[in-house]
Amino acid sequence: MRVSIPSLCGLSDFRGFSQVAVSNHTGRLVLVMTKEELKGASEEEQQAQSKKGLKKAQKEAEKAAKKAEKQAKLAAEQQSTDEDDFAKDRYGVSPMVQSQEKLDRVLVRVQQLTPERADQLIWVRARVHTSRAKGKQCFLVLRQQQFNVQALVAVGDRASKQMVKFAANINKESIVDVEAMVRKVDQKIESCSQQDVELHIERIFVISQAEPRLPLQLEDAVRPEGEGDEEGRATVNQDTRLDNRVIDLRTTTSQAIFRLQSGVCQLFRDTLTDKGFVEIQTPKIISAASEGGANVFTVSYFKTSAYLAQSPQLYKQMCICADFDKVFCVGPVFRAEDSNTHRHLTEFVGLDIEMAFNYHYHEVIDSITDTMVQIFKGLRDKFQTEIQTVNKQYPSEPFKFLEPTLRLEYTEGVAMLRAAGVEMGDEEDLSTPNEKLLGRLVKEKYDTDFYVLDKYPLAVRPFYTMPDPTDKVDLEKIKAYIDSFRYGAPPHAGGGIGLERVTMLYLGLHNVRQTSMFPRDPKRLTP
Amino acid sequence: MRVSIPSLCGLSDFRGFSQVAVSNHTGRLVLVMTKEELKGASEEEQQAQSKKGLKKAQKEAEKAAKKAEKQAKLAAEQQSTDEDDFAKDRYGVSPMVQSQEKLDRVLVRVQQLTPERADQLIWVRARVHTSRAKGKQCFLVLRQQQFNVQALVAVGDRASKQMVKFAANINKESIVDVEAMVRKVDQKIESCSQQDVELHIERIFVISQAEPRLPLQLEDAVRPEGEGDEEGRATVNQDTRLDNRVIDLRTTTSQAIFRLQSGVCQLFRDTLTDKGFVEIQTPKIISAASEGGANVFTVSYFKTSAYLAQSPQLYKQMCICADFDKVFCVGPVFRAEDSNTHRHLTEFVGLDIEMAFNYHYHEVIDSITDTMVQIFKGLRDKFQTEIQTVNKQYPSEPFKFLEPTLRLEYTEGVAMLRAAGVEMGDEEDLSTPNEKLLGRLVKEKYDTDFYVLDKYPLAVRPFYTMPDPTDKVDLEKIKAYIDSFRYGAPPHAGGGIGLERVTMLYLGLHNVRQTSMFPRDPKRLTP
Repeated sequence: MRVSIPSLCGLSDFRGFSQVAVSNHTGRLVLVMTKEELKGASEEEQQAQSKKGLKKAQKEAEKAAKKAEKQAKLAAEQQSTDEDDFAKDRYGVSPMVQSQEKLDRVLVRVQQLTPERADQLIWVRARVHTSRAKGKQCFLVLRQQQFNVQALVAVGDRASKQMVKFAANINKESIVDVEAMVRKVDQKIESCSQQDVELHIERIFVISQAEPRLPLQLEDAVRPEGEGDEEGRATVNQDTRLDNRVIDLRTTTSQAIFRLQSGVCQLFRDTLTDKGFVEIQTPKIISAASEGGANVFTVSYFKTSAYLAQSPQLYKQMCICADFDKVFCVGPVFRAEDSNTHRHLTEFVGLDIEMAFNYHYHEVIDSITDTMVQIFKGLRDKFQTEIQTVNKQYPSEPFKFLEPTLRLEYTEGVAMLRAAGVEMGDEEDLSTPNEKLLGRLVKEKYDTDFYVLDKYPLAVRPFYTMPDPTDKVDLEKIKAYIDSFRYGAPPHAGGGIGLERVTMLYLGLHNVRQTSMFPRDPKRLTP
Repeated sequence: MRVSIPSLCGLSDFRGFSQVAVSNHTGRLVLVMTKEELKGASEEEQQAQSKKGLKKAQKEAEKAAKKAEKQAKLAAEQQSTDEDDFAKDRYGVSPMVQSQEKLDRVLVRVQQLTPERADQLIWVRARVHTSRAKGKQCFLVLRQQQFNVQALVAVGDRASKQMVKFAANINKESIVDVEAMVRKVDQKIESCSQQDVELHIERIFVISQAEPRLPLQLEDAVRPEGEGDEEGRATVNQDTRLDNRVIDLRTTTSQAIFRLQSGVCQLFRDTLTDKGFVEIQTPKIISAASEGGANVFTVSYFKTSAYLAQSPQLYKQMCICADFDKVFCVGPVFRAEDSNTHRHLTEFVGLDIEMAFNYHYHEVIDSITDTMVQIFKGLRDKFQTEIQTVNKQYPSEPFKFLEPTLRLEYTEGVAMLRAAGVEMGDEEDLSTPNEKLLGRLVKEKYDTDFYVLDKYPLAVRPFYTMPDPTDKVDLEKIKAYIDSFRYGAPPHAGGGIGLERVTMLYLGLHNVRQTSMFPRDPKRLTP
């Protein structure tokens, strides 16, 4: 096995993008696992670029190089113009990080900047969130993920006029290395996460310069909806966010959402692993549409066609028939639905469970609901900072759940709806408005945002009442699946949940695109 | 969010396959998360089957039902013909598990059948691995995943002649519930995992009957290669295994391989989570070939075309530019390579890492190699049973590694090869035989199966020496990626590893299809 380190970015120019963009595989380093087998060059290294793309990229590289050169020159000039600048070694554009030296300089995390560090001289690497010159001072807010701190460069014995001017001119979103004294402040700095200290900068170097014009402003991107209108300040619409996702993901809200989402996956897996489940990996390219022929993406597969799996359903059941007893998987699922709603994606992450049971499917329900409860508890206990960060922009009540989970029989649900004035039959399916209403009624009565609706009438959606003329499941193509029931199959059941919807509902967000890093829908394939 | 429980198999017939095969979505139960949002019927429920498929399935169902009826009748006759069968309530084909009753009968795991349980009367559910009648006795081997135990039904005060006959006629691979007394044995039972006890059966009921003819025999499927030829016993070739994967996965070897593989994923994630990495989910459907236009699968995407991601490369780098600092992902990657070798798959699971570093890319190398070491250690310490199980069929030396990982500079590698008589230039790439040879030399000299080859000459595979005329990266299509470097990007590096190859190499296996549950290659799309 070869592991290429495809983007040794220390070897290329980060402020331009030339080498990185056109050469993902410089192949400067390989990890080698030699046991039994040693193999030829990996696929990763067999990639190269077209002459056309290459030329274009080279041109861009030249342009970027020229620009960088110019900036460096300017910085140099700035220093040289004022020969009596006693602080000239204390600021500037740093030479590119090229893995030439291994500094043993410790970089402190912004999150660690608390009063315990007061009067220590520290180094920190962070983004310039804002910068504002004010007479002989320049105030900066330095940001690192969800955390930020106020910093100050003031003309004095550690900083010259020129240095303050340099700091004031650093483009927002640039990355800087700063040496600073940590100082306690008398009045809490409400606008920053680190409210009790500020940094008095003694050295400042730009590590990676951002372009002067950003396609969106981070302050606008975290502003609660509504506030923009009232006070004439801007908010950012969803398409602008998604078109410039890399910047949108830098907001405190996005950082919190996706750190919490990472927690959902971890809690899901850890809970199931503790319960004795085995993680499986199921194929995404399949020979027959797993859930029928509609809503399936077709893939060109050498000289034939294949499909993208709409769920791991068939495979997780086969794993049960193959004696894995209890399995789960976390992976992408694909739905070619032309639905442009706030809760549909064409690609999302499925959290799937399947398990054999002994006597009653309630054993499975209990496992699934307990898993959900463990996720909810874990999020509540370990991700409070993230929840509160998201709530600042999207206010929402804490997610409520019961332990054990409320199990409501369908007839009880129908009775509750009827008591609220809804007319419906015993075996009638829940319409969307009725489902919403029932949710509100359950919340009022039981104070929970999560419940199970059991004994859903089989008559509601029996498979034979709704033959879909577009579906053409070729049984020959899923023969292996059908056969797996011929050779002894334990009773089993399971379920699947969309990761993005769990995160969305838990945080009270209103669009599933907010919880998908790079969402895909019928109209969006980029970034 | 609705969670359909698509296969409430307790509600359908497991010994046939009718309802299960044609109705994945009985929709009998939903989990409801109501927060803020309650939605209409999920996509999962909007699936149905074609009339044609339906008819065929119904026919099959009728056939299966008739067969089951016949078997039940036979069983009933068997009991009734001999009216003096005192044991007639102690065996039989159990009524289907239909979630009608919640037994509080505890089922003991086969793995727990140790001398501590001696003289206890227990219930166990397991597969009939083998059964062999011998006069008034019937010896069974009962299997549960990697574990098996010998069991015995003997004519006596707990079992009648008829009961022994019934037990002897149960088809292999059927699932049975057995009530039995645990008895210590004087002589170890070498052929079973539970060597110190056997079960004296007092009741036996078939829960799920396997068909009498299996497409492959499990004993053959675990036989070490070579042994088959010598003693005239069969082994099973790879295509037969893969065509009947559900049965092949039941072997002790397969159970061990995939349980260990589940451990690789868990160790990878846990190690990185402890190091402060965040898990990300990257899209698999992309608008431009991430690694160039060759070897990429095309997907029909509504009215346009898209591609399947050949790696999460671009996305994990964007996440670094979006301030996630250290990220990892575990997910499928797709390569449309028409390579029919023992180590190529068209779909495999990538374990990917990307991280910002401070001063030197060795920081990243150290993180990656330490992660690998933690995986190797975790496997060694927690999966010894699985390793030894696999070794029984595929003998192999334990996987060797050093801590910290050996880092060899390329020039040192070249020097070692030259000392072994190889003629090559300083900047020459390693050929496959030379890479293999170097692996052996490193193993001899340093006693390790894992090392890093650092300072791979840039000249070996610079991006501009191998322009691939089929590659046409449209920079406009990866604009978001390129832009992410315009707005401040920290120095970063990363790598990717194939899960199946890690498992294969660690266990000393010789084909990557052995470590992929449902492998995909240019010629295989099923099961």
